[in-house]
Amino acid sequence: MAYRVVQYENGRLHVLDQTVLPHQENFVELENLAQVEHAIRTLQVRGAPLIGVTAGFGVCVGLKELPDDTPADQVRSRGREVVERLSRTRPTAVNLFWALERMAAVLAGLDGPNWRSALDAEAEAIFRETLDQDARMADHGMQLLSAGERAITHCNTGPLATGGGGTALGVLIEAHRRLGGLHVYADETRPRWQGAHLTTWELMRHGVPHTLICDNMAAALMRTRGVDSVWVGADRIAANGDTANKIGTYGLAVAARHHGVPFYVVAPTSTIDPALESGEGIPIEERDPAEVSAPGGHRISPGDTPVWNPAFDVTPAELVSAIITEQGVFRGPEYDFRRPPSEE
Amino acid sequence: MAYRVVQYENGRLHVLDQTVLPHQENFVELENLAQVEHAIRTLQVRGAPLIGVTAGFGVCVGLKELPDDTPADQVRSRGREVVERLSRTRPTAVNLFWALERMAAVLAGLDGPNWRSALDAEAEAIFRETLDQDARMADHGMQLLSAGERAITHCNTGPLATGGGGTALGVLIEAHRRLGGLHVYADETRPRWQGAHLTTWELMRHGVPHTLICDNMAAALMRTRGVDSVWVGADRIAANGDTANKIGTYGLAVAARHHGVPFYVVAPTSTIDPALESGEGIPIEERDPAEVSAPGGHRISPGDTPVWNPAFDVTPAELVSAIITEQGVFRGPEYDFRRPPSEE
Repeated sequence: MAYRVVQYENGRLHVLDQTVLPHQENFVELENLAQVEHAIRTLQVRGAPLIGVTAGFGVCVGLKELPDDTPADQVRSRGREVVERLSRTRPTAVNLFWALERMAAVLAGLDGPNWRSALDAEAEAIFRETLDQDARMADHGMQLLSAGERAITHCNTGPLATGGGGTALGVLIEAHRRLGGLHVYADETRPRWQGAHLTTWELMRHGVPHTLICDNMAAALMRTRGVDSVWVGADRIAANGDTANKIGTYGLAVAARHHGVPFYVVAPTSTIDPALESGEGIPIEERDPAEVSAPGGHRISPGDTPVWNPAFDVTPAELVSAIITEQGVFRGPEYDFRRPPSEE
Repeated sequence: MAYRVVQYENGRLHVLDQTVLPHQENFVELENLAQVEHAIRTLQVRGAPLIGVTAGFGVCVGLKELPDDTPADQVRSRGREVVERLSRTRPTAVNLFWALERMAAVLAGLDGPNWRSALDAEAEAIFRETLDQDARMADHGMQLLSAGERAITHCNTGPLATGGGGTALGVLIEAHRRLGGLHVYADETRPRWQGAHLTTWELMRHGVPHTLICDNMAAALMRTRGVDSVWVGADRIAANGDTANKIGTYGLAVAARHHGVPFYVVAPTSTIDPALESGEGIPIEERDPAEVSAPGGHRISPGDTPVWNPAFDVTPAELVSAIITEQGVFRGPEYDFRRPPSEE
């Protein structure tokens, strides 16, 4: 990989500070629990899978000051506090809670002097599984691509979002490496510009030919230049395939359908919520109006202009050509994830 | 009107400086030809109809220093220079050339001591006709609206764009005044943010309830909150109704069609190009990449990120529910403007 996103070695955790990309590449050490909490809360690390990975290692960092010979009950007690504090950093990232539950289970089972290596091993397993999952999504997704395709992607779903190979953008980066000739159009992704800040930077670092566009140019791009496929990630997928993802995804799906362009969602199985019948049950978070009216701190509208700023939208399953997980390619428009696919 | 956009009185021309809106409201005098040229070139005045109006008055300002008793041939000679200089301020605004041709015709016919009042009268006629045209577009467009509608608009097409009542936004402002209860959603209109900078300011000043959204939220808005109609202006309309307008218009039209929402174009007859068979003949200007990659001077992507920045897109006639001119409402999808409609 052309850059490191997260690294845990000899008990020391380093992460790439994503708040200063693409202007600075700071690979910083998170030396204690407070620094790990701060990094997750302020989006120095972001992307649901990467938050999970960081939280796993964060438990180890949070127990670093305990001597090796600390009795197991004291490790468990302090460990519970650490898990509790990390669980309060972000409310919605499912992978955060999933990773912390795994660490808590190991904590609960501790009974000897090897507690530190047991916790390190679990955090490393979480990371390794993410890497593996991403590689398998790339393998499956690539079946849908050919050399020389023009693809559009929205928001950031590359290595920066997982710490591994990435989800949707991971498929495109790997397909370019193996097939060659891809050209990726990156939506800037208002209001927070993840596409402009992060996706163009990742494409540059992986040597994938690319072009930045404003979100409102995607439809004209399809009409005038031709686009072969659209690739996005997901924040939550309902049992019927309805997909919640970064705001703007739905409009892109509508444009893709109008132009007969396939629309692909790439996400690990953990993103699927089998208990949720359809996308109508997904609550849509509305965020700070200033993200829209004062981008980068620069106010663009009168001070009291009312703003609508939903963080996500829901794309109905009938507009999703296929959903790609680490388990394989699931083709729509009929999806049934009431029981998530599991490995045999 | 709640604010003055342009005013010509006793030989003095004042304009509202649109480059500092919505933060400052500077109604500045353009005291000489150089200041008029500068104002048009730097977008202190913008919008094709307003550029035409300003150019008409600009000819008068440019001849201000000549004594009243200047011989007609000297007025004509200096007048030709003024017209020539103003014609070089903006290359594409059709109304600029149309207004300057009218002023040039009056100059050519001058033969007595009343040259100043003859030129003033023609510039004032151009302005008056624009006001009248806008009022008639509002009358016609309003037939398509009901009290309490939710409308979306793109870019800025209000009084700021014409010096009169405006085109598409003019219809909405007047409909709110007469029918009441409208709610207007303003697309921010990347890359230059005319919707955020200018449209929200105009809606506020006219007391029309409104909400600012990012362009990529329009489709989700249609799906989740419901939208009754979409209103946009035009930069050029082909004989078959294909419409070139600010980038993002086409994607909005695609979303409107997907949701069964009517899509209306409002523009004076002078915007129709009867010689142009279809939109395929409309050249699309590509502008400075920095508008996309460094909005407001704040760089959002790596320094060498390739950018696509078309200023306009073309919406095919089949997506346009009706075109409203000062002559009336023309319903699609079949349009025939090979001979522009003319008043009987």
